[in-house]
Amino acid sequence: MTTEIPQSGLAMRTLITAAGALELSLVDQPVTPPGPDEVLVRIEAAPINPSDLGLLFGPADVSGAELGGTPERPVLTARVPERLMPAVRGRIDQSLPVGNEGAGVVIAAGENAQALVGRTVAVLGRAMYAQYFTARAADVLVLPEGATAAEGASCFVNPLTALAMVETMRDEGHTALVHTAAASNLGQMLNRICLQDGVDLVNIVRKPEQAELLRSQGANHVVDSSAPGFLADLTAALEETGATIAFDAIGGGRLVGQILSCMEAAAVRKMPVYSRYGSDTFKQVYIYGGLDTGPTEFNRGFGFAWAIGGFLLTPFLMKTGPARAQALRERVAAELKTTFASRYTGELTLAEALQPQNVAAYNAKHTGEKYLVTPNRGL
Amino acid sequence: MTTEIPQSGLAMRTLITAAGALELSLVDQPVTPPGPDEVLVRIEAAPINPSDLGLLFGPADVSGAELGGTPERPVLTARVPERLMPAVRGRIDQSLPVGNEGAGVVIAAGENAQALVGRTVAVLGRAMYAQYFTARAADVLVLPEGATAAEGASCFVNPLTALAMVETMRDEGHTALVHTAAASNLGQMLNRICLQDGVDLVNIVRKPEQAELLRSQGANHVVDSSAPGFLADLTAALEETGATIAFDAIGGGRLVGQILSCMEAAAVRKMPVYSRYGSDTFKQVYIYGGLDTGPTEFNRGFGFAWAIGGFLLTPFLMKTGPARAQALRERVAAELKTTFASRYTGELTLAEALQPQNVAAYNAKHTGEKYLVTPNRGL
Repeated sequence: MTTEIPQSGLAMRTLITAAGALELSLVDQPVTPPGPDEVLVRIEAAPINPSDLGLLFGPADVSGAELGGTPERPVLTARVPERLMPAVRGRIDQSLPVGNEGAGVVIAAGENAQALVGRTVAVLGRAMYAQYFTARAADVLVLPEGATAAEGASCFVNPLTALAMVETMRDEGHTALVHTAAASNLGQMLNRICLQDGVDLVNIVRKPEQAELLRSQGANHVVDSSAPGFLADLTAALEETGATIAFDAIGGGRLVGQILSCMEAAAVRKMPVYSRYGSDTFKQVYIYGGLDTGPTEFNRGFGFAWAIGGFLLTPFLMKTGPARAQALRERVAAELKTTFASRYTGELTLAEALQPQNVAAYNAKHTGEKYLVTPNRGL
Repeated sequence: MTTEIPQSGLAMRTLITAAGALELSLVDQPVTPPGPDEVLVRIEAAPINPSDLGLLFGPADVSGAELGGTPERPVLTARVPERLMPAVRGRIDQSLPVGNEGAGVVIAAGENAQALVGRTVAVLGRAMYAQYFTARAADVLVLPEGATAAEGASCFVNPLTALAMVETMRDEGHTALVHTAAASNLGQMLNRICLQDGVDLVNIVRKPEQAELLRSQGANHVVDSSAPGFLADLTAALEETGATIAFDAIGGGRLVGQILSCMEAAAVRKMPVYSRYGSDTFKQVYIYGGLDTGPTEFNRGFGFAWAIGGFLLTPFLMKTGPARAQALRERVAAELKTTFASRYTGELTLAEALQPQNVAAYNAKHTGEKYLVTPNRGL
């Protein structure tokens, strides 16, 4: 079996130098042979999620990115504005692997994991923009027979985040939820989960065609923040569903505060007497993304029973415990081609992923657009 | 005993009409004779807390307030800007009593509360800008012999809020705390509590003289947000104390986000390896006041382990339960002249409290300034 193991493979790296240069490059790195409980995966597909972009580019000004190096070993460089350097102090001069998740074929395995050889598996490994990855066998998710690596590439981040939202809603005593940028891949997935589980979901989108898309997928409550009646529409949907928790992918701007204000307005309509302190209905918004990297701004006209916080998958999984996390993963595998199906806008080789015009496309974060890196194609 | 009970007494009322007029007035209202378990209190002193101002004036433009009525029954009127009317929809055309807390002498009592006659007591009653108040005997706090009504007037809101902050810090697993507008009456009280209890407190003030005041009262960590090195000073104090929870009286502006960013910077300094998601140190800011009524604005450069929320005394007391709440009240009574002493800038009769120049003074919310209404003086 040792004969199957390649000596080395290409891997993408991101580096920010002390002088403020961002460098994305491809390096040859030695392949780690699998230990007794490990598998070696040839990675066939890895999505570019919004959560990858933060590490890939940091706060660099990508609009001025330039391509250097050679066609086989391209290097993309861009500048990090000096005022933003303090935000990346912790990563200065470290060449970091990137790519949170992906899927591929097990091409070698240690003695306790031989049954996995030849299977297509999904991996959450934080270094998936690479040709090979050595993982603990216990950490990979074996895809159902017939599922391709592309179908399984986005098994973890979006599906588990969407499931974590519904679980968090229940854990924290809410009965319905709100989601923003709701026409995203994750949003469409969340809509399917909620329809299947009978949970009321208020989808907030930013364009009429996104509202149409979600309605065509059976969504019952869709409000368009670009419509003139947005706040009234949102308040009505919140009153109807009783949703008092929201998950926000946008982060910047005024939407977080508007959601809390509309939740409060819906709660106040149900109050028998006026209170100067507002309603005692607890209202929660979790920010899990930063599609708008500008500041978050809100007026505090929603009483005192409210919270805004950060939301991230890993701490949720830590808190929820291994048994429940495993149950969620198994649901993802079982419903991979239905509830948790992802759509991709295009595929990029490792080298193509460094081309400035491709960077501009996938870094634009258009709702519903997602690209797939295919590390073992075209090299 | 019935002979001691007056027929009626003056009381302040606040009203916002559907047409957008704010009216503060004095009304004669009948005195409610005490039931078997009740006491009738002649109110001698009631503070004007920031939490009273919101109900007193709503969103009215007080700078243009005009005095009408008669010298004995003055009426202060001001306009509520039309765009702000939705925020007060719940109180339209309701004449509301005002004054969260106060103290006075029990002048009559029901058969089961006779022991209280003649005692000076503090009351949390939401209608304390009035000559008389009928309370359940179980709800009043009997002041120690020798304590005056002025000394006991602020027994509840500030002392219990300051104690609630320290309790919340402990309940939520933090070991040190941050307070803003820290030279306020409440802030000075919190500083005394923390010194006594051995809890590290980072005091944030807005002027050098406020820093001096707190240092003269033994404060160990004082940072001045008007100083050029503010963010570095704050980060150093946070690193030294390990404070990861803050209570903010200001609300608007950028301070809330700056506190979270400095907490994150202090946490990151202790991290062995870089994480794109920031530290996993959970950082909490509670907003309990609105000295700056403008929008809250923050960049989200502090990872994902953070929360901002509203904080209010009453829900805390509900959550903490009656036994613990009673223990806190007893501590306040026992340390009334030391830890929980309040200082007042001036005293106002009910009629004086409606004079525009006095309104301008107490509505300015200058840190450390506080006024006392004396409903049974000068009428």
